[in-house]
Amino acid sequence: MSLLIIGTVAFDAIETPFGKTDKIIGGAATFIGLSASYSTKPVKLVAVVGDDFPQADILTLEEHGIDTEGLQIKQGEKSFFWSGKYSQDLNSRDTLITELNVLADFDPIIPDAYQDCKYLMLGNLTPAIQRLVIQRLVNRPKLIVMDTMNFWMDIALEELKETIEMVDVLTINDEEARQLSGEYSLVKAARKIQEMGPKFLIIKKGEHGALLFHKNKIFFAPALPLEEVFDPTGAGDTFAGGFIGHLAATDDISFENMKRAVIHGSAMASFCVEKFGTERLLNLTQEEIEAREAQFGELVKVLPVTAVLPA
Amino acid sequence: MSLLIIGTVAFDAIETPFGKTDKIIGGAATFIGLSASYSTKPVKLVAVVGDDFPQADILTLEEHGIDTEGLQIKQGEKSFFWSGKYSQDLNSRDTLITELNVLADFDPIIPDAYQDCKYLMLGNLTPAIQRLVIQRLVNRPKLIVMDTMNFWMDIALEELKETIEMVDVLTINDEEARQLSGEYSLVKAARKIQEMGPKFLIIKKGEHGALLFHKNKIFFAPALPLEEVFDPTGAGDTFAGGFIGHLAATDDISFENMKRAVIHGSAMASFCVEKFGTERLLNLTQEEIEAREAQFGELVKVLPVTAVLPA
Repeated sequence: MSLLIIGTVAFDAIETPFGKTDKIIGGAATFIGLSASYSTKPVKLVAVVGDDFPQADILTLEEHGIDTEGLQIKQGEKSFFWSGKYSQDLNSRDTLITELNVLADFDPIIPDAYQDCKYLMLGNLTPAIQRLVIQRLVNRPKLIVMDTMNFWMDIALEELKETIEMVDVLTINDEEARQLSGEYSLVKAARKIQEMGPKFLIIKKGEHGALLFHKNKIFFAPALPLEEVFDPTGAGDTFAGGFIGHLAATDDISFENMKRAVIHGSAMASFCVEKFGTERLLNLTQEEIEAREAQFGELVKVLPVTAVLPA
Repeated sequence: MSLLIIGTVAFDAIETPFGKTDKIIGGAATFIGLSASYSTKPVKLVAVVGDDFPQADILTLEEHGIDTEGLQIKQGEKSFFWSGKYSQDLNSRDTLITELNVLADFDPIIPDAYQDCKYLMLGNLTPAIQRLVIQRLVNRPKLIVMDTMNFWMDIALEELKETIEMVDVLTINDEEARQLSGEYSLVKAARKIQEMGPKFLIIKKGEHGALLFHKNKIFFAPALPLEEVFDPTGAGDTFAGGFIGHLAATDDISFENMKRAVIHGSAMASFCVEKFGTERLLNLTQEEIEAREAQFGELVKVLPVTAVLPA
């Protein structure tokens, strides 16, 4: 089923305790698109870059089945650039540089060929621009998933709430869920956030896994304990891309299928963190992905007592 | 099977964002003992208090099946006292007061009637005292579980390593596992710590669940998302008490049974945090405990695809 994503396509410069990069390709929509492309193609992209963005990287996106008709290239302007440095335990990061550049006046134009989309993923962006995308679609998609962050809660809370009201699934982290709801208990937070509009809430907890809430139902997917953890940049976007990619591919938005989508997204994110930037997402095989999904089942499996008691 | 626990029995004064207490009963061995008592009785206690410790609270322990023959009462001395204040998100706490009192020269005397113990739980204490308990047992217990904390890694690392070498199961949190091993990846950290002696490692992650490692096997139990989270004090001890209580009651130390012990311990800890101090642990029913254990299975359950695809 047709998947449309909107978000940043950008340059990142990253420093982790394990190494640092010069400017490499990043941005929420880049990670979302690459991740989703392992489930469904084409992935229709709405984003903006400057003329400094390498043609080779646009080709890489296209080779992964990402339709770039909606990728605006602004002549004489520069692409969005973010630079950050992670703490020793990777659990926090300082932003060193944010250059909005082309993002400052981004007008998300939806090509006519994108109007048939049934699944819409709103990557983290100004809530007003996310809302504009919904409004510019002639038919409301079957499912709208929205990612956001505490930054918008701090500076544009009312605007953010207006957009949240229009979506089906919201993905945020635990700290953000507490901030948005004013509740410490994630159970209470999830209830309040569902009252704000989204029927489903995903709380992303990074290396601690992800929670899916819907009405009084809760599902938890752990994060896989990994041998190599290198760079968390893009992990949340990769999760979201895997999540909506799986839903679009199966065209089933039941709670039960969303559980599987959460596991698939978690598996995709577990690859993302093993290398800098998008590197690990460029050449995955279905076998690798399925093997990792199977590990989630193993990790939480408990045999019934009767099966293991001595005879 | 006979369970022996050693640890602190003490006074706590606690402040959380949700309220504060005067001096109430706390201490690692108190939480461990109460929690374990729901699985196995008697729980044999080695600890020390001053003559300020209320007789009524000792009676409460005894009513829960805790054998207090090994509880030394030092006349003219005061019990260990700890006071702490939790951060807004409950994820960190500042120690306001630590008065060692009777703990300063604690000599853990093992009553003869305790010598038959098969399961030994070393609650968080000076590593040298934990080791002394092992040395004073005529026969090595079938299973020794040890809890410790970063404080001992900071000030008594070599002594700590000597004790760790003698135990079967070590329980620490993720930050401590990283500090002890020098590895960021918990998979690598678990491997290194197993090389230090313990054949099993449990990494406690509080509201993010618990990981059990043994050789190349990993099991993960989530923490239950709770309606009410009030006071995390004693949750780790309550987990440990439930864990070893289950093992002692079933007398089965297979990896498969340890998984169930981790789930039982997690269920017990989920009660602990709902009220201040030990309050919630005093009057639980087996039905309540089993209902909560069942929730762990529900939380991670994914139906096979064939069972839910439309016909």
